Amino acid sequence: MKQWLDATLKQLNLVETMEQPTGFTRLGYTEEENESLQAFITIAKELGLYIIEDAAGNVIARWETNNGVEEKVAIGSHVDTVTNGGGYDGTAGVLVSLGAIKLLKEEGFTPTHPIDVIVFRSEESSRFGISTVGSKAISGILDPSIGSVTDADGISIKEAVEALGYQWEDFSQAKRTDIKSFVELHIEQGTVIEDAGKQYGVVRGVACPIRLKVKVQGKAGHTGTTPMNKRQDALLAASHLIPFVSETAIKLNATSELPVVATVSTIECKPNAMNVIPGVVELGIDIRSVDDSLKSKVADEIRNKCLTIEKELNCSIEIDVLVHNPSILLDESIQKKLLQAGDHLGYTNLLMDSGAGHDVMNMQQLCPSGLIFIPCRDGLSHHPKEYASIEDLYIGVEIVAQFLRIETGERDEHSRRSSRS
Amino acid sequence: MKQWLDATLKQLNLVETMEQPTGFTRLGYTEEENESLQAFITIAKELGLYIIEDAAGNVIARWETNNGVEEKVAIGSHVDTVTNGGGYDGTAGVLVSLGAIKLLKEEGFTPTHPIDVIVFRSEESSRFGISTVGSKAISGILDPSIGSVTDADGISIKEAVEALGYQWEDFSQAKRTDIKSFVELHIEQGTVIEDAGKQYGVVRGVACPIRLKVKVQGKAGHTGTTPMNKRQDALLAASHLIPFVSETAIKLNATSELPVVATVSTIECKPNAMNVIPGVVELGIDIRSVDDSLKSKVADEIRNKCLTIEKELNCSIEIDVLVHNPSILLDESIQKKLLQAGDHLGYTNLLMDSGAGHDVMNMQQLCPSGLIFIPCRDGLSHHPKEYASIEDLYIGVEIVAQFLRIETGERDEHSRRSSRS
Repeated sequence: MKQWLDATLKQLNLVETMEQPTGFTRLGYTEEENESLQAFITIAKELGLYIIEDAAGNVIARWETNNGVEEKVAIGSHVDTVTNGGGYDGTAGVLVSLGAIKLLKEEGFTPTHPIDVIVFRSEESSRFGISTVGSKAISGILDPSIGSVTDADGISIKEAVEALGYQWEDFSQAKRTDIKSFVELHIEQGTVIEDAGKQYGVVRGVACPIRLKVKVQGKAGHTGTTPMNKRQDALLAASHLIPFVSETAIKLNATSELPVVATVSTIECKPNAMNVIPGVVELGIDIRSVDDSLKSKVADEIRNKCLTIEKELNCSIEIDVLVHNPSILLDESIQKKLLQAGDHLGYTNLLMDSGAGHDVMNMQQLCPSGLIFIPCRDGLSHHPKEYASIEDLYIGVEIVAQFLRIETGERDEHSRRSSRS
Repeated sequence: MKQWLDATLKQLNLVETMEQPTGFTRLGYTEEENESLQAFITIAKELGLYIIEDAAGNVIARWETNNGVEEKVAIGSHVDTVTNGGGYDGTAGVLVSLGAIKLLKEEGFTPTHPIDVIVFRSEESSRFGISTVGSKAISGILDPSIGSVTDADGISIKEAVEALGYQWEDFSQAKRTDIKSFVELHIEQGTVIEDAGKQYGVVRGVACPIRLKVKVQGKAGHTGTTPMNKRQDALLAASHLIPFVSETAIKLNATSELPVVATVSTIECKPNAMNVIPGVVELGIDIRSVDDSLKSKVADEIRNKCLTIEKELNCSIEIDVLVHNPSILLDESIQKKLLQAGDHLGYTNLLMDSGAGHDVMNMQQLCPSGLIFIPCRDGLSHHPKEYASIEDLYIGVEIVAQFLRIETGERDEHSRRSSRS
């Protein structure tokens, strides 16, 4: 199995070795994502699964049953990446799902429900600034108006999907009503599991972000001829906000139970020329916590700070809220099953929260859903050096297989009863 | 003359009105710059001037003499602009040069030396990050190796000039050895003249910049999953340097005789994605003073601050010196003539320094050279709202014409003697 995991990981990533100095770039709804999906289809067929592509381009590999049960148990993740990202974010979950099917098939397991391995389209927000497009479609929560949102080349989501042969108008048809439960496995993208000395994590809540766009308007002028006391330097003004954002998160963490993180992650400066004082600067701020009130507190403090900066640095500041999503609490019964699975197999685990968004947060709005984290080296993610060991992937395979045994096995009813007692 | 100035200003700017909400964009060695040069040629021919284009594409309109004198007296400036810049920076000097020729021709003046009105190519650094290309070629100080420097579209200087029909290898042939003296008129791009209640300025020194590229290397990571205390945020580290740069200039100004200005004018952040902690940030810093030791002091303090930031913010910083040009002192005898010209005509003036670089700084390395500043509204420059009044342009015409009377008139020898006495 471990050899199979290693070979299949490379196959899904379309490489001979996972050592890729510039990482992996498979943006959503591109030929690159398609190629990885084709690899997935090849592997799934070898495992005897039946392939369905839905109206949003999500690929589903189904383990059929002959017992007339319509309700499917679903597992899966995504294969798209950020620009120059890693080969594990998303792909690990797809790999482990296939591995769990292989394990169960090899032991002659017969599921009581059809099992769907879903590869969701365009999970990352790198291309269009919008994340989890495929799982939003499946969950029936995709806003059709985002079709006009464009990538850096001016190509809209609608144009991008149509170039691949899909119809944007049909995306709503991808909504599912036949899924009993969903479980995703993902690399942690942090070091909480490692720091706690455990083998895997089961996620309680997904910290969805508040995202702000802060536009600082100063006045452009010649860098050589404008005296220091006559300037309205937008970058100088913005530079006072950047440390404040992280300091505010650190300050709140000292007194709150749940953590909050806040980052100025993007900056655009205009005209960005050596001999011109910056006239306009736009900052993108990402604030996350499972505790929604903490996120709002950080956003409020940023707003107040901007008022001070406007006065002190002679500029005007506009704040737009790009995203304000309440955090998602995952299903408790699924959490229990995922913990039980590890307990049964002898793997140590912990309940934890996710700072990052995942397809599972949309699926939770459709059906009881759960998220398993496996460790990744140094917590590094969205980076060419992102890495999870085959050993940890194998633990994931065993946990997911055990979950499927619980969820779709004949012992299903029995184990539910015993866990309630 | 004022009506002619107004009409010719628009003609050189290729517009019907100077009110242009997005300003003027005529980057160096582009069709847009060419079109403005064609307008210049048309106007110069109407004034009876003879057109020469040199090997670097500089356009020279010559007032010939029949007295066998080879040595030319030169005046002029440039017509290229920054992106979305104003219609006066450079163009005002070209316009006033033509106006002075017109004035002298109309009064029947006969110069003792041929007079060259030079329009220098690509004075602004906006396109290639390299300024005053044309005047460097004429002065014989153009570094041929810069031919490989590229613009934002990846087009090299060599490719750009060859697309317009010039040969990069031939640029050295543009060097002149027949120029007696050179005078440029430019808008001040500041408010020193206005603040002093004077009508024009005569420049002593041009504050050439030290330009630094500061590369802050942190570590990219997921904004949602990386705890605040495990980050190496390159933007956070860079944000500590930005206020320091301006604070250092302000601090030194409090105790120094000559002013120094320092600006963080450019910033690039990678990967600049909403959900990724900034991994690499590059800042461009522009430091200017006529006092070279002050510039070096600012650069030294920035270097020291970077050492502190490296330690405190867990990142590494590299500093490249992009430009380190000693400031240029202009010819004293020309300064005297330019002051005399105003005194004679009844215009008030002051001796001042230039915070910005101009073609004249290269010409000073070839021949005695001078620079006249006229006021511009609010000191605004490199901006669509850049503006100089026709009245101030007319004063410029009179000063330049009077300079030409002194420099190329029969009273030349006499007035030199009297000014020495």
